[in-house]
Amino acid sequence: MSSGIKVFAPATVSNVACGFDVLGYALHKPGDEITVRFKDTKGLVIKEIRGAKGKLPYDIHKNTASVAALSLLKHLGEEERGIEMTIHKKMPFGSGLGSSAASAVAGAFAVHKLLKSPLSKRDLLPFILDGEVLASGSRHSDNVAPSLLGGMILCRTATEVYRLPTPKGLYTTVVYPHIEVLTKEARAILKPEVPLKNAIAQSANIAGLITGFYNSDFDLIKSCLEDHLIEHQRAPLIKGFYKVKEAALKEGVLGCSISGAGPSIFAISANSLIAENAGVAMQRVFNDLKIENDLFISEINSEGAILL
Amino acid sequence: MSSGIKVFAPATVSNVACGFDVLGYALHKPGDEITVRFKDTKGLVIKEIRGAKGKLPYDIHKNTASVAALSLLKHLGEEERGIEMTIHKKMPFGSGLGSSAASAVAGAFAVHKLLKSPLSKRDLLPFILDGEVLASGSRHSDNVAPSLLGGMILCRTATEVYRLPTPKGLYTTVVYPHIEVLTKEARAILKPEVPLKNAIAQSANIAGLITGFYNSDFDLIKSCLEDHLIEHQRAPLIKGFYKVKEAALKEGVLGCSISGAGPSIFAISANSLIAENAGVAMQRVFNDLKIENDLFISEINSEGAILL
Repeated sequence: MSSGIKVFAPATVSNVACGFDVLGYALHKPGDEITVRFKDTKGLVIKEIRGAKGKLPYDIHKNTASVAALSLLKHLGEEERGIEMTIHKKMPFGSGLGSSAASAVAGAFAVHKLLKSPLSKRDLLPFILDGEVLASGSRHSDNVAPSLLGGMILCRTATEVYRLPTPKGLYTTVVYPHIEVLTKEARAILKPEVPLKNAIAQSANIAGLITGFYNSDFDLIKSCLEDHLIEHQRAPLIKGFYKVKEAALKEGVLGCSISGAGPSIFAISANSLIAENAGVAMQRVFNDLKIENDLFISEINSEGAILL
Repeated sequence: MSSGIKVFAPATVSNVACGFDVLGYALHKPGDEITVRFKDTKGLVIKEIRGAKGKLPYDIHKNTASVAALSLLKHLGEEERGIEMTIHKKMPFGSGLGSSAASAVAGAFAVHKLLKSPLSKRDLLPFILDGEVLASGSRHSDNVAPSLLGGMILCRTATEVYRLPTPKGLYTTVVYPHIEVLTKEARAILKPEVPLKNAIAQSANIAGLITGFYNSDFDLIKSCLEDHLIEHQRAPLIKGFYKVKEAALKEGVLGCSISGAGPSIFAISANSLIAENAGVAMQRVFNDLKIENDLFISEINSEGAILL
């Protein structure tokens, strides 16, 4: 039996205020670790799943990580290859931080590394999406692309993704309150129609945000990190949301909104000091509400999935 | 009496497909010429208006050009200064090419130059908007800002405007069919609500377009120059629109849509040859429909308003 290889794929913040369904970025922590090694018998198996409290299936056709891996193996003509996979879930489910995306990325990336496949990282995206669609029901890249590639990613379509520059020193604060928000419910709550004026304001903000990123213009980034379409619809699903946001803004963050479908709340700051102060202030609100919560602070992760 | 000075402010294409209300760029032609000179009696007067077929008022409080000029004079504490203005309208009204914006820009810019005011070009924007609001009823910069500053301009708000880079060689073709489209009607036809999925597609396109501009990525620019919110609502106001668009796309333009509220139709091309071929093809459609039309082809005008 080979010694195997271990990879890590990070959690991600998607939507990023004004970038609903089109923008996402990677964190340094938390994330998923997956180990793969060759075995003598044919085919892929999931040998062990840790940290998932029994919530993830061992059936390779039902697990996001193995489905992504299988899709890649099929493409490489290696479906029969004997591989065993150990999944170490080191992040919460249903947190709005792209848990299934991290699994799909780690699954495909691990097999890619094990087989020394000739593909580029970016080439893995379609296979990863085959895993992600299993969990989310749709082929969206706003979590998988940043988890794979790192950085701030614009997803024009599922496979047309672009890395955006971000100013040096940009920090992110994420607080995950232990509140259950089902992605399906968070989707269902959205009205199918939105006011034209809000759509225009959202356009202006995403346009301004990207311009701000290219020009390292913190004032512009700050004024554009505001969601006119989604946040007010989902905020009621997260007890304390507006207080948390207010607390973060008071500390001087550039913006604060809901990560993915929630309940995690992210803030983006111009430096680590503000990011840390915002983290304390955001946690205090949840603590006062007796809502357990976790805090993650890091620079934007520019590497994405890595070999450990 | 002084010899006076003469300025030119160009016509502009606003909306630019996916940039409804937030994006605009300047043409080289047509545009407005305004001459101003000092006179011995107090106050601003409009001495002559040419090329407007009697449609523009001589009352300085009702003419876009003089209202913008007056707003600037007031700011400079020079309301009493004796100035006479000659307006030479060298572009059509109601064409969707920012006729009133060009007048407002030329009016304020002319006075700015005559008085050798210490302001920067960009500082003139609020005064110009005072003129533009008279004509359009709202303080929008997507025509006035590009006419003043030149280039491709992102208008996040009326006074927060940003110059975007555009790839070298970008050409624009504009065909103005002599069809009457009232801006008010073109506004009234717009539904106050839009489908969320269209708002998302529009966000993805404006985000991608700006990224494409920064990276000189013609493929990305091409795939993003598509309007999901407005074009299909206004197209019925312009006879032949879809045929003109199809003809332009067949020639290989990067994108084609309605300029402003119409009826002018613009295309953007990667070089002048495509722009010229598209112009011929677009005109042919209108000619076949027996609709008189004018053609304007140029690079994107990077200067905006100039002293002649």
